[in-house]
Amino acid sequence: MRIVFPLFDGVTALDVVGPYEVLRMLPDADVVLAAAAPGPVTDGAGLLGLTATAAFGDVTDADVLVVPGGPGARANTGNEALLGWIRRIDATTARTTSVCTGSLLLGAAGLLKDLLATTHWSATALLESYGATYTPRRVVEQGRIITAAGVSSGIDMALRLVELIAGPVAAQAFQLAIEYDPQPPFDAGSYAKAPQAAKDYLASR
Amino acid sequence: MRIVFPLFDGVTALDVVGPYEVLRMLPDADVVLAAAAPGPVTDGAGLLGLTATAAFGDVTDADVLVVPGGPGARANTGNEALLGWIRRIDATTARTTSVCTGSLLLGAAGLLKDLLATTHWSATALLESYGATYTPRRVVEQGRIITAAGVSSGIDMALRLVELIAGPVAAQAFQLAIEYDPQPPFDAGSYAKAPQAAKDYLASR
Repeated sequence: MRIVFPLFDGVTALDVVGPYEVLRMLPDADVVLAAAAPGPVTDGAGLLGLTATAAFGDVTDADVLVVPGGPGARANTGNEALLGWIRRIDATTARTTSVCTGSLLLGAAGLLKDLLATTHWSATALLESYGATYTPRRVVEQGRIITAAGVSSGIDMALRLVELIAGPVAAQAFQLAIEYDPQPPFDAGSYAKAPQAAKDYLASR
Repeated sequence: MRIVFPLFDGVTALDVVGPYEVLRMLPDADVVLAAAAPGPVTDGAGLLGLTATAAFGDVTDADVLVVPGGPGARANTGNEALLGWIRRIDATTARTTSVCTGSLLLGAAGLLKDLLATTHWSATALLESYGATYTPRRVVEQGRIITAAGVSSGIDMALRLVELIAGPVAAQAFQLAIEYDPQPPFDAGSYAKAPQAAKDYLASR
């Protein structure tokens, strides 16, 4: 079970690490962190380095592809080398997925045309520019293609993937393993629910 | 606002990256990822490298200390150099916190004696061996010391920290930024709620 995450400078670390912590527990998981070259990439905040274990050129297939987002995803929507690699890997997968603005890379690669999809709430118009229909759900399944909403949604998507791949008991076991019993102190995690003051605070930064 | 995460081989990546993605957004955040030496550490699965930006010896104070867990936390409960560093940093902080079995390091450093605290559900007896009283809440506040439950709970704790440091609007804004509107497909994220089959599945691995 080869699970491949493409990495690039400007990736949002949690887009990778949330699903990674769940999917790596799959029986026979073979997790590959691929980038232009093996070695560290730097996250979107310019602070955290994640180490790629393989070069894109050395990865030719995957059972599950998880494309993360971040400023680097938006920056790479014109990177034909990366988009071509995503298309080639997608042609081999059982599941092609994205977290946050990773869906913009799937869209730019032509994989979301005429599909329902989701992304970070700030990128909905961009997503639709690739022929997808934005759907404000946390995880959107369209056959082989699954997109997840912003950043933290990758954890929910990964648990659903485990359910699809290994069944509900495995998914519940992995949820317990990461003690994912979320209790955020506020109910402000979606654009529909967040108070205007929180939106204004983000806009002012 | 210096926010320091100690890293070590065997750390659980999500213990770091969950709170990191929230706390790095604090105004004037100065995030330091410290380890025995700058450069990559390898996570508890032996797969993912996170890059430390500083050596423990070069970090002498913090406003917020976030101690992550993982197999490497359990392995370091006898590492007097690390425990001494944690004690020295704790003496300078406004908040000393842990995620998952990071609380075992706080405990081994003598910082949880006679306090209520939490940890990963699999480590409650070990936690109590350091004089703490295990409390099955997701985030346990005891003045300056805040402990969080397993792995994913660091996100909830970080949002609470933001509320304490920068107020509720900032916390709601950061929750929206990471679109943290959790919708796990099952309700199996605590030991009390997980079905026996899920516990058996984990135990059999």
